[in-house]
Amino acid sequence: MAFLRRQYTSIGIIALFTAVVVGALVGLLDGEVGLESAGITAFGIGWRTGLAFLVGAFCSAISGYIGMYVSVKSNVRCAAAARRSLNEAVTVALRGGAVSGFLIVALSLIGVAGMYYAYGGNSNPDIAPHTIIGFGFGASFVALFAQLGGGIYTKAADMGADLVGKVEAGIPEDDPRNAAVIADLVGDNVGDCAGRGADLFESTAAENIGAMILGIVLWKVWSDQGLPHPEAWVLFPLVVRSFGIFASMIGVLLTKAKENENPMNALNRGYFISVALSLGGLILAVLVMLGSDFVWLIGAGVVGLVASMVVVFITQYYTEPGHRPVDGIVKASRTGPATNIVSGTAVGFETTVATGLAIGLALLLSYWMGEQAINHAISIGLIPEGTHGGIFGTAVATMGMLMTCPFILTMDTFGPITDNANGVIEMAGEGGQARAITDRLDAVGNTTKALTKGFAMVSAGLAAFLLFQAYLERVALLRGEVFEVIDIARVEVFVGALVAVMLVFLFSSMAVNAVGKTASKVIDEVRRQFREDPGIMEGTSRPDYAGCVDITAKAGLREMIAPSVLVVATPIVLGLVFAQIPGYDAAMAVASFLMVGTISGILLASFLNNSGGAWDNAKKFIESGEFKDEEGNVIGKGTPTHAAAVVGDTVGDPFKDTAGPSLHVLVKLLSTITLVLCPLWVTVV
Amino acid sequence: MAFLRRQYTSIGIIALFTAVVVGALVGLLDGEVGLESAGITAFGIGWRTGLAFLVGAFCSAISGYIGMYVSVKSNVRCAAAARRSLNEAVTVALRGGAVSGFLIVALSLIGVAGMYYAYGGNSNPDIAPHTIIGFGFGASFVALFAQLGGGIYTKAADMGADLVGKVEAGIPEDDPRNAAVIADLVGDNVGDCAGRGADLFESTAAENIGAMILGIVLWKVWSDQGLPHPEAWVLFPLVVRSFGIFASMIGVLLTKAKENENPMNALNRGYFISVALSLGGLILAVLVMLGSDFVWLIGAGVVGLVASMVVVFITQYYTEPGHRPVDGIVKASRTGPATNIVSGTAVGFETTVATGLAIGLALLLSYWMGEQAINHAISIGLIPEGTHGGIFGTAVATMGMLMTCPFILTMDTFGPITDNANGVIEMAGEGGQARAITDRLDAVGNTTKALTKGFAMVSAGLAAFLLFQAYLERVALLRGEVFEVIDIARVEVFVGALVAVMLVFLFSSMAVNAVGKTASKVIDEVRRQFREDPGIMEGTSRPDYAGCVDITAKAGLREMIAPSVLVVATPIVLGLVFAQIPGYDAAMAVASFLMVGTISGILLASFLNNSGGAWDNAKKFIESGEFKDEEGNVIGKGTPTHAAAVVGDTVGDPFKDTAGPSLHVLVKLLSTITLVLCPLWVTVV
Repeated sequence: MAFLRRQYTSIGIIALFTAVVVGALVGLLDGEVGLESAGITAFGIGWRTGLAFLVGAFCSAISGYIGMYVSVKSNVRCAAAARRSLNEAVTVALRGGAVSGFLIVALSLIGVAGMYYAYGGNSNPDIAPHTIIGFGFGASFVALFAQLGGGIYTKAADMGADLVGKVEAGIPEDDPRNAAVIADLVGDNVGDCAGRGADLFESTAAENIGAMILGIVLWKVWSDQGLPHPEAWVLFPLVVRSFGIFASMIGVLLTKAKENENPMNALNRGYFISVALSLGGLILAVLVMLGSDFVWLIGAGVVGLVASMVVVFITQYYTEPGHRPVDGIVKASRTGPATNIVSGTAVGFETTVATGLAIGLALLLSYWMGEQAINHAISIGLIPEGTHGGIFGTAVATMGMLMTCPFILTMDTFGPITDNANGVIEMAGEGGQARAITDRLDAVGNTTKALTKGFAMVSAGLAAFLLFQAYLERVALLRGEVFEVIDIARVEVFVGALVAVMLVFLFSSMAVNAVGKTASKVIDEVRRQFREDPGIMEGTSRPDYAGCVDITAKAGLREMIAPSVLVVATPIVLGLVFAQIPGYDAAMAVASFLMVGTISGILLASFLNNSGGAWDNAKKFIESGEFKDEEGNVIGKGTPTHAAAVVGDTVGDPFKDTAGPSLHVLVKLLSTITLVLCPLWVTVV
Repeated sequence: MAFLRRQYTSIGIIALFTAVVVGALVGLLDGEVGLESAGITAFGIGWRTGLAFLVGAFCSAISGYIGMYVSVKSNVRCAAAARRSLNEAVTVALRGGAVSGFLIVALSLIGVAGMYYAYGGNSNPDIAPHTIIGFGFGASFVALFAQLGGGIYTKAADMGADLVGKVEAGIPEDDPRNAAVIADLVGDNVGDCAGRGADLFESTAAENIGAMILGIVLWKVWSDQGLPHPEAWVLFPLVVRSFGIFASMIGVLLTKAKENENPMNALNRGYFISVALSLGGLILAVLVMLGSDFVWLIGAGVVGLVASMVVVFITQYYTEPGHRPVDGIVKASRTGPATNIVSGTAVGFETTVATGLAIGLALLLSYWMGEQAINHAISIGLIPEGTHGGIFGTAVATMGMLMTCPFILTMDTFGPITDNANGVIEMAGEGGQARAITDRLDAVGNTTKALTKGFAMVSAGLAAFLLFQAYLERVALLRGEVFEVIDIARVEVFVGALVAVMLVFLFSSMAVNAVGKTASKVIDEVRRQFREDPGIMEGTSRPDYAGCVDITAKAGLREMIAPSVLVVATPIVLGLVFAQIPGYDAAMAVASFLMVGTISGILLASFLNNSGGAWDNAKKFIESGEFKDEEGNVIGKGTPTHAAAVVGDTVGDPFKDTAGPSLHVLVKLLSTITLVLCPLWVTVV
């Protein structure tokens, strides 16, 4: 927890500074164009944006903190419950996870709704969403630091401890003689709980705000036609989110595990209950708020719900043994680390297709359904010709997907809780039934962690699509003219796209490199301790654990700065430079930067997350002793095949727990930062 | 050579079949729209396209064959020359390389020019370029098969031989007891010479045709204004190419090495002479053909020439020891294969920035200069308002870059020649001065091979930009209306971009996986031979070399099919499906598919090529014995550090010699295939 405190102190200082700069920039430069027509001064927009940024940043930090706090507290209780029965252990772990899962989503909902009303949403539902986008920016800003810093901390410690311990000194994993072992254990919670909590907090907040901005279009149509309750279109995303929270809550409460079944089945049953109830909530919300003429939008929401289930299936296929990808890696390990790496890389590249198809089909289908909904409304004379609704369809799909977010987050925190409960039982030297139960829960926890990453990835893609539609709306509002064509055949727009792909690669390079470099330092430190104090190896003297914790903590804090600054600076520089060049449309170049950045960011994340997960499970499969050669001899721990699989697992660590998850956050940060700062480069050309 | 014959027989059959299908499709479907206004029937376009495809395919195959043939024949002569002096050895190797370098580029020029006149370029300079694009399609079609099949063959043999020999059996590289060693040696020529020859043949041909299509725009303006020699704009690319051939020729003839210098310096001097003479030729061509009002276009050409030199510098920085990237990998190898892989991956990701910047800046600058040129012409009343010339600037930059292509190709073939000459000297058991000379030449050859890959990569990026501008022109011609906006904010256009990135990743996955799988088969075969005939290890019986050759050859042929079909089918399916959906603009979706596919393809190639090159040289640096620990002890061959570096090198092999180079070809194939087949989905929506 000490690291988290130091980390959040640093982030807090940076966030405060950034808030002032952002507020000042928006306040000073918003002058000529835009929102002022609605009676808010430039200064008014400036301070509102800055304040919203701070609130968002604070809530995001709280989310991360809660995630970690609950996880640390629940594991002992889970271990105790495991001594009684599987069902009790599952219930304890799940409800522990639910504390953070629901707090995070509720915080996001309260934050967005609170800011909306505080900034005059009641009287100006068309303006308020534009002033609270700073909230999303603040949230993603902190999420990036949390995910990246935490990821570097945890994986540098993990890699360092494993390499010097298991590979060099030949002592088992988590052996107390290894000086890096405490840093490794602390790191697990920092990365998984704090990072993912902030990530999904940000997804839900950004989705809400983006959808509200898109809703303004229909609010206007409604108001112009004099139809009742136009503000329903702006508030709709918040109501859907609320239903999602209730649905997930009931799902968690109804999750019961039978003693003899795979606990994953129990979680899946709970998840399906949540999905079914969410669907009910969605239907209710559409019918009551939007009316029965918009049933097509229910279809769009269903697309989102189905997409979330498809992602769960895809992730399991690519990262669990028993299917072609992981089995292929296991087989390739027999011919050494090089073929293991080549095979895992190929698997990772391949997963981009499934991820891309899930996103692409969800967008196409929900867009089409949105068009049907609006066309129907036009055909019955409810709204005038020329209104486009496809985008609103994709917005509803994103809402649908994120409805079950509390349940998914609950399952995510379930992972570290059961993992640590397993550790508690192990340290207590207990065996028998309790140990068997926590072992099974631990395996399930690994799966749920992978699923959450897949969910976070695809929902980030959908949310980003929403956000850059919101960006187009905002540029149009600021310019006072239609802005909906992003012409990538223009040279500056093409270069914007090129820069986006470069940024995604460079960011990943920095993240992965930071882990590798820090791990090398940890290794040097452990080697030094072994060399200078031979008593450590003999078990007579205690290694200096604090030394390793200090190295990783400092590195986590220092190395997260440069990549984060890069991400924040690139779109701003791109926009400002292109705005200076006559004939260039900077807003358009930034838009294509966003869109292509989203595509490449999500697909590269898919490569990194899934190759890492597949390598991890290939190693675990070999360790389980289930892998046999042609003659039926077990190829298990200690064989060259296992050593090769360990190399893949180690390479995969920074991929799947540092660079990959940070890329989801990067994608959303790019969206929110450009949304907030577009006044800087929006001038009409 | 037997493999090459089998490979080209397979490719020939596929190409013939494809030519008929393409011709038929274009002939049948071109009906309603387009070129017919110029008096050519749909059937006429169909057979012309099909025939051009076959001629292009044939020339491409010849190019690959020549490259390999010359390389095989020159190495003995180079070895003989090395017994006399360094300068003679350099001259022989360089002129051997020049045979294929110049033949390939000349063949491309003759092919394009010949087709142009054969298809009535003299009377219809505006129509002929559109009928010869089949030539570019055929060339890139064969190039993809050649590069991919050759790459799989060579690297599967290489990986298999190294893993089973060096790592498992503990026998040295190229030891005759290793059954895979012959397949490995044969493979070197198949991949490097045949593949790269076809790749750059295709680049030059595609660049010429693309630039000619863009030239038609100015031809029209010229004709409408009644200015003299409007056809100069269409012929200009061919003339510039000719000057480039002459300039490179003189550069090769003037290359002289001093006995005591690094032979790379001699090559660099020759290269600079070629660049300077190319510049002279460019100036002459602009002034004589286009007139002194278009001096800005000289500037655009200079941008291209400079870009080619920048690429050379970047590649050296990232892949040669003595700079941060490779040194970092070497250091990371000390903590094992996992850190070696992580570090190399980070380097590879990072190189995308340099590659992207080179392409992005070249495009922006040359586009700007093209605008200046046309604006000047407008300001003096030469041509009417509203003409855009930026694209023509980027075309001239691409021409400038590719002017020195013959010299670059010469240097590329220089690599395998000196490599094999070194082998000849080694097998003859000679030492002393001759050995020292070929050793030095071999090292230079490795560098020139890497440089060529960088050159091929960036020129592919620029050529593709040209080609999709040509695509826009062609769609406009077929639709009979302006088509210049590619709106990536439309959902189908966004999905087109998404599919492009997916395709690039999936193709790389398949290519890398094919190598890994085949290598595993080679390993199993060598193991089987060792096991069944213990005499092999003792040196008393000869292993069955043909068995391994057969495995890799069959795999090379079989595994190249699926990825190639994928590349050809994806744009067609995308176009056809989206053309069926009302409201979707399929031509636009395909255009964004092309553009984003180009960006991601080139940058992923940059990752794969440069990480592979850096791993390779990190291993070589350790083998050179120059790497020392803190106390000054050499960490060289046989150490765990070296073993870790070998893992990286082995992983890098399929990256840099199979997937990476195939991606350049993929990018251009996508461009030519969509250019030829756009009538299928061009219908106005």
